[in-house]
Amino acid sequence: MTNVVQKNILVLNGPNLNMLGSREPEIYGTETLADIKDILVNRASDYDCVIDFRQSNSEGELVSWIQEARGTASAIILNAGAYTHTSIALLDALQTAELPVIEVHLSNVFKREKFRHTSYISPAAVGVICGFGAKSYCLALDALQDILS
Amino acid sequence: MTNVVQKNILVLNGPNLNMLGSREPEIYGTETLADIKDILVNRASDYDCVIDFRQSNSEGELVSWIQEARGTASAIILNAGAYTHTSIALLDALQTAELPVIEVHLSNVFKREKFRHTSYISPAAVGVICGFGAKSYCLALDALQDILS
Amino acid sequence: MTNVVQKNILVLNGPNLNMLGSREPEIYGTETLADIKDILVNRASDYDCVIDFRQSNSEGELVSWIQEARGTASAIILNAGAYTHTSIALLDALQTAELPVIEVHLSNVFKREKFRHTSYISPAAVGVICGFGAKSYCLALDALQDILS
Amino acid sequence: MTNVVQKNILVLNGPNLNMLGSREPEIYGTETLADIKDILVNRASDYDCVIDFRQSNSEGELVSWIQEARGTASAIILNAGAYTHTSIALLDALQTAELPVIEVHLSNVFKREKFRHTSYISPAAVGVICGFGAKSYCLALDALQDILS
Amino acid sequence: MTNVVQKNILVLNGPNLNMLGSREPEIYGTETLADIKDILVNRASDYDCVIDFRQSNSEGELVSWIQEARGTASAIILNAGAYTHTSIALLDALQTAELPVIEVHLSNVFKREKFRHTSYISPAAVGVICGFGAKSYCLALDALQDILS
Amino acid sequence: MTNVVQKNILVLNGPNLNMLGSREPEIYGTETLADIKDILVNRASDYDCVIDFRQSNSEGELVSWIQEARGTASAIILNAGAYTHTSIALLDALQTAELPVIEVHLSNVFKREKFRHTSYISPAAVGVICGFGAKSYCLALDALQDILS
Amino acid sequence: MTNVVQKNILVLNGPNLNMLGSREPEIYGTETLADIKDILVNRASDYDCVIDFRQSNSEGELVSWIQEARGTASAIILNAGAYTHTSIALLDALQTAELPVIEVHLSNVFKREKFRHTSYISPAAVGVICGFGAKSYCLALDALQDILS
Amino acid sequence: MTNVVQKNILVLNGPNLNMLGSREPEIYGTETLADIKDILVNRASDYDCVIDFRQSNSEGELVSWIQEARGTASAIILNAGAYTHTSIALLDALQTAELPVIEVHLSNVFKREKFRHTSYISPAAVGVICGFGAKSYCLALDALQDILS
Amino acid sequence: MTNVVQKNILVLNGPNLNMLGSREPEIYGTETLADIKDILVNRASDYDCVIDFRQSNSEGELVSWIQEARGTASAIILNAGAYTHTSIALLDALQTAELPVIEVHLSNVFKREKFRHTSYISPAAVGVICGFGAKSYCLALDALQDILS
Amino acid sequence: MTNVVQKNILVLNGPNLNMLGSREPEIYGTETLADIKDILVNRASDYDCVIDFRQSNSEGELVSWIQEARGTASAIILNAGAYTHTSIALLDALQTAELPVIEVHLSNVFKREKFRHTSYISPAAVGVICGFGAKSYCLALDALQDILS
Amino acid sequence: MTNVVQKNILVLNGPNLNMLGSREPEIYGTETLADIKDILVNRASDYDCVIDFRQSNSEGELVSWIQEARGTASAIILNAGAYTHTSIALLDALQTAELPVIEVHLSNVFKREKFRHTSYISPAAVGVICGFGAKSYCLALDALQDILS
Amino acid sequence: MTNVVQKNILVLNGPNLNMLGSREPEIYGTETLADIKDILVNRASDYDCVIDFRQSNSEGELVSWIQEARGTASAIILNAGAYTHTSIALLDALQTAELPVIEVHLSNVFKREKFRHTSYISPAAVGVICGFGAKSYCLALDALQDILS
Repeated sequence: MTNVVQKNILVLNGPNLNMLGSREPEIYGTETLADIKDILVNRASDYDCVIDFRQSNSEGELVSWIQEARGTASAIILNAGAYTHTSIALLDALQTAELPVIEVHLSNVFKREKFRHTSYISPAAVGVICGFGAKSYCLALDALQDILS
Repeated sequence: MTNVVQKNILVLNGPNLNMLGSREPEIYGTETLADIKDILVNRASDYDCVIDFRQSNSEGELVSWIQEARGTASAIILNAGAYTHTSIALLDALQTAELPVIEVHLSNVFKREKFRHTSYISPAAVGVICGFGAKSYCLALDALQDILS
Repeated sequence: MTNVVQKNILVLNGPNLNMLGSREPEIYGTETLADIKDILVNRASDYDCVIDFRQSNSEGELVSWIQEARGTASAIILNAGAYTHTSIALLDALQTAELPVIEVHLSNVFKREKFRHTSYISPAAVGVICGFGAKSYCLALDALQDILS
Repeated sequence: MTNVVQKNILVLNGPNLNMLGSREPEIYGTETLADIKDILVNRASDYDCVIDFRQSNSEGELVSWIQEARGTASAIILNAGAYTHTSIALLDALQTAELPVIEVHLSNVFKREKFRHTSYISPAAVGVICGFGAKSYCLALDALQDILS
Repeated sequence: MTNVVQKNILVLNGPNLNMLGSREPEIYGTETLADIKDILVNRASDYDCVIDFRQSNSEGELVSWIQEARGTASAIILNAGAYTHTSIALLDALQTAELPVIEVHLSNVFKREKFRHTSYISPAAVGVICGFGAKSYCLALDALQDILS
Repeated sequence: MTNVVQKNILVLNGPNLNMLGSREPEIYGTETLADIKDILVNRASDYDCVIDFRQSNSEGELVSWIQEARGTASAIILNAGAYTHTSIALLDALQTAELPVIEVHLSNVFKREKFRHTSYISPAAVGVICGFGAKSYCLALDALQDILS
Repeated sequence: MTNVVQKNILVLNGPNLNMLGSREPEIYGTETLADIKDILVNRASDYDCVIDFRQSNSEGELVSWIQEARGTASAIILNAGAYTHTSIALLDALQTAELPVIEVHLSNVFKREKFRHTSYISPAAVGVICGFGAKSYCLALDALQDILS
Repeated sequence: MTNVVQKNILVLNGPNLNMLGSREPEIYGTETLADIKDILVNRASDYDCVIDFRQSNSEGELVSWIQEARGTASAIILNAGAYTHTSIALLDALQTAELPVIEVHLSNVFKREKFRHTSYISPAAVGVICGFGAKSYCLALDALQDILS
Repeated sequence: MTNVVQKNILVLNGPNLNMLGSREPEIYGTETLADIKDILVNRASDYDCVIDFRQSNSEGELVSWIQEARGTASAIILNAGAYTHTSIALLDALQTAELPVIEVHLSNVFKREKFRHTSYISPAAVGVICGFGAKSYCLALDALQDILS
Repeated sequence: MTNVVQKNILVLNGPNLNMLGSREPEIYGTETLADIKDILVNRASDYDCVIDFRQSNSEGELVSWIQEARGTASAIILNAGAYTHTSIALLDALQTAELPVIEVHLSNVFKREKFRHTSYISPAAVGVICGFGAKSYCLALDALQDILS
Repeated sequence: MTNVVQKNILVLNGPNLNMLGSREPEIYGTETLADIKDILVNRASDYDCVIDFRQSNSEGELVSWIQEARGTASAIILNAGAYTHTSIALLDALQTAELPVIEVHLSNVFKREKFRHTSYISPAAVGVICGFGAKSYCLALDALQDILS
Repeated sequence: MTNVVQKNILVLNGPNLNMLGSREPEIYGTETLADIKDILVNRASDYDCVIDFRQSNSEGELVSWIQEARGTASAIILNAGAYTHTSIALLDALQTAELPVIEVHLSNVFKREKFRHTSYISPAAVGVICGFGAKSYCLALDALQDILS
């Protein structure tokens, strides 16, 4: 973890998050994943950070991205969507990465179905932020500043 | 859900269903997934329906197909195979799709191992049909006629 | 099972199904159990079947009817209502009857309370059809044609 | 629920309650079910109520009585005995009846075996009164006065 | 329990046991419930006992018979069939009867499905005999001789 | 328990019950805890009873009040609110008090979240009354008349 | 199992059964294990059987005796005492022995603590007899006559 | 919730949080609860907020403070410490308060003992932030700005 | 833990222990908590120890006392009563105190109700002593001599 | 228990305790089981007691020793080691022995693996002492003085 | 399984195994997955076997490779990594393949977190070898020689 | 572990393994435990190892043998048979022995009854090999070569 490029933040989004905005806008609002990316990139400029923002429906692709983060990224912000609750493979990948990870969710998952209350990912995370919509990502970025400095 | 192309039925098949027919024919019979498709396409012509019949071993690809169904298909017939019992991501995708879904299984899963008795998919389905082999698909197609008209 | 009278279909309805139609019509519609019987009898004429349609609130009477079906009926369509989830006696009777059985439900029971997700009857059934209202019975009758021929 | 005969209260007693009084009198006292009926009928005259008091060992008969209550009775006081803990059919019947229901028990069931701590009936009841012997019925009748006026 | 008629043994059989003999004879043999009764009546003559042998598919009727046994019978031999595993009402009736009860089963229920491994009836029984076919009843009758003398 | 002052009834209310009336009045009505006290005090005058009516948010204070009741009160009516489901200390205090206790709840707790279905207090109570709003307290007071005389 | 000496019955008793009679005689009676042996040996003479009656507190010794029974004994009557509920080794030994086994208990174990309700031995037994004291052994011997002839 | 004093933020700390700083400083650092208060007050000045910062070891006192918040505070930041996992009374109080609540924890509780993984408080919270030490409070304050405007 | 006053032993008693002696004396004896204190103080003089003996019904007060013990006491003997089984706050306080703790109980809690078999406190204790009445405290004091020297 | 030799204390040690001292001395210290015996014998001389100190790896031998204790010993101190958690046979033996039993453990078993938190032996013991190393035995001997006098 | 090419062994590696060697080398050693392949290929030459060695992070790709193995491979050595514990799809694929399968793991998974103790794959495997690092693969290859000849 | 005799391998076999070969040869084959020993001794000569091969039906004897292995053996190969699933005493003995242990089973225990899926022994083992019959022992011996050198 010594000579990696500083301040490159990998932001990963799991299955179905690409549907944000066009999906039940009366409930979730009209903000898309692209909008979230823009907000985050904008804020990152204040912090001298670069944002690498990606989405995939494939568990295996997410695992691969986390593996590649080692040596190229300084930290990971991860919204694993439904894989949060079923993927031990993501946990293993995060533990291998040896990077600070912050787990985020748009909604307060603890208010939803019982099977969304357990997370395989939390044990590998510095902390968890959920329930603030797009702002969850920004708060995670803020929190990373202390951790990385 | 207003101005989509009417009567386009997406029929999705999950992992290992591509092996049908060549797999233990003395038990499962010699009927292949292609045969099931033919039977279904034939029957669909009576109903003025078009069948879009696909199979994938990848959970992520199935999620993506369900996402794309919104706006292009009228309904989904889903045999998710083993993912029925493990995939919350498919549940989320189905709930986003906002289309009528019928869950089908070739065998009566309630007669098999305990871990096949639970389904993440049922809560998002109009109904469940299992235990009639290829006919499960046809009964689902029949059932859809009332729902779509 | 050899020289029984062909094509006599016993359709059994369990507790509270006699209240259909007059019960919360804004929810369940105005279709009564008698209406379902008429639809089914009508459709049966296409198939050269005779429908023997009964209802009882008594678990013991349902058990007795299933016992008598052996030798007089060709198949059973069973909507056991609440007994679906509590009656091992019905399961035993069905296993003794040695007839093809199709389990039907008007609603998608898997969307309702947890105690309606388990069925003692499914292991004795060829298949399960639920969630299509009165059409559940018709689909069951359709499915029986292949099984009986 | 509009033009039913006012103030007709159906009081239903489940299995084994007919044995009251002659059964272990040193424990349960010598009060019989007929005595409870007399006490209740007497008290009802103060309230301008008519008591229709019945007992059955048959789950199906109890279900039928509840069904018939709709349109003829104003409320139900139900001591379902052992069926409290095993009968989903009674729950369904109560939900169909659309009448105020009060669940009563002679003993404090929460002091007895674990399997008597769960009730299928409570979710369909306005309230529960248990542990006061015959007085449980009288308190239920009192409570109904506010609910019916 | 003092001045009842001595040596009158009530033998109760629960749901589906009336099908014995005609049901899968290659598995269960050709012995009918009537045969079991004859064997038992014959053996009872050695013991100066009278056998009152009944069968019912109705849980409520079995409860009533057990209630009536008090004062008329000396003991009960009970094969409750499937109600063994679901009926708290039978348990309550047996506890009210205050008679020696022996629980019998034709087969070794502990070798069968998991839901047949629990019995509500055992706590009210002197003992349990299972796995000897018709002989289970005879052994129970033998066992009663010591208990009644 | 011999020479205590007769007819002094301690009525205890647990956490958050002081908010009654001002809390979501469109749901719970505008009746306050003070109103309930007034109704109860009024009714007590018919019975020659004195009502000692208290509320506390502190588990320890409730325990202390129950301890002091011994020798000064004739009975306890207890609405322990949320502590019903979490406090073994209240159970111990009640068992030490050696007084008749009636457990009351404003709402039918069995219709609410699962964690409100279990009570540490019921085993120490004569009986339970729930679901009748303020009237639950009055019914408890009525029930106490028989118990205390 | 072909040319073994006919009618040699191995009767095995597990831990603490050697204390019978001298142990809480006001509860268990004064009958010792030696008395049970005498009764059984006496009865065996009617059946042309030889009884080999043993007791051990050692799980391993019981396993060895069962192993040796193969080829020297015709059947086993086993009261494994507390090992009934904890020993898979006894189950394995019984399955190797390939002899008819009857499981007996003096008391009705289903009326006692929960951990005595499960048996590792039942799946290897022809049947189970419990609750008749010393007579449990005699009934087992009777039952063996049919099985061995 | 209309005419309350704007921007008054109640920050509540549960049992043992007063020990912060003097407790295992080599692990938890030397930052005290007073330090956290100072940081938060300072930051609040940027937002035109007033911070009302309190700590108590008493569950009842915390409940009372939450009750009083209604009408005097705009939002609650709550670190309930160990009561997070055991107090239904706090949940009830929060639901009565009808204020936006953010649940915070210094450590990532999901990495600790299993009994710290469940929270009675989460269902009443807008969101949860844990694992960032004192910064958890600041992030909560930031998150409140959007919610309150 | 360096320059604290040596040999000051804090003895804490939880809810309802103040009722000892006057509570069911035929069962628990007539020994009061004051008597236990006297016995312990007397014995402490042999060991050059000072006993600080307290009782509270309030969980929060017990937590505060444990916090204050740090720096003023050498060890804690804790009988937390019912809070043993429900209080994580006490566990946290004990872990902060960094003092040797011995958990004591008057009765053998493992012989009582199941919910008294689990302890949140044991993981923070050097050892556990239960079942010897007042002597449990004395044995704990004896055990502390080795630990403190 | 009348005319047995007074003050003979049987001290039993279960499997692997013979390895004490030579086993991981950097963790468990160099004290052997022989050392514990010496300490205990020495202390027993103060009390006019004789110590009969034994160890066995065999469950059956421990059962036999407990049986023989009846009539020859006044009390039992039992460290059953791993058999504490798996042996119902030891429980039965202890209940037959009708002697005061104290359960001891060298370590605080409640701090170790979950399967060491349950004990079959506790229900037959007067009390439990754990966590004080060799001193656990001495405290048990002290506690016995009150019980035996 | 008749005329397939003999001795072609498919060795499949699941998610994150591609990180071997570069991942925490002080713990896992510096051996990479390529090294394991080399060792295995070398050893295979002694056995007249060809090794087809692959890795994927995608569950679906692993399913497809197993399907293709039928007819082209003689056996499968499978280290499914984290998918071992979550994938029913892999189980189904293996059962379709009708090839001897050996499940291997580098570490002894039974010593790790609880969720790694269950395997969906074991029921489809001839045997399991775990805990020997790279040697686990070699032992599996050795074991296959007997099975294939 | 320094100056022990190198390469002495203790091979222990638990209950019922002495019956191998004569037990259901049509299933388990005719290979006896003596045959396995011969194969293993033969192979050991290639490795410059001495095999000490033993079997016992007694849990205590197996514990003692493991204890004696310390200082005389270099490693243990253990097939504990049924004790694998019930013996914590064996686990404790293995942890005391401080020797490399390999757990072996003839059959794939994970394909058999559920109670054979858990092992108390695995946490103390370097690795597990099961399902290869006698070859399981040879593979264990092979695996030991790397570990011991």
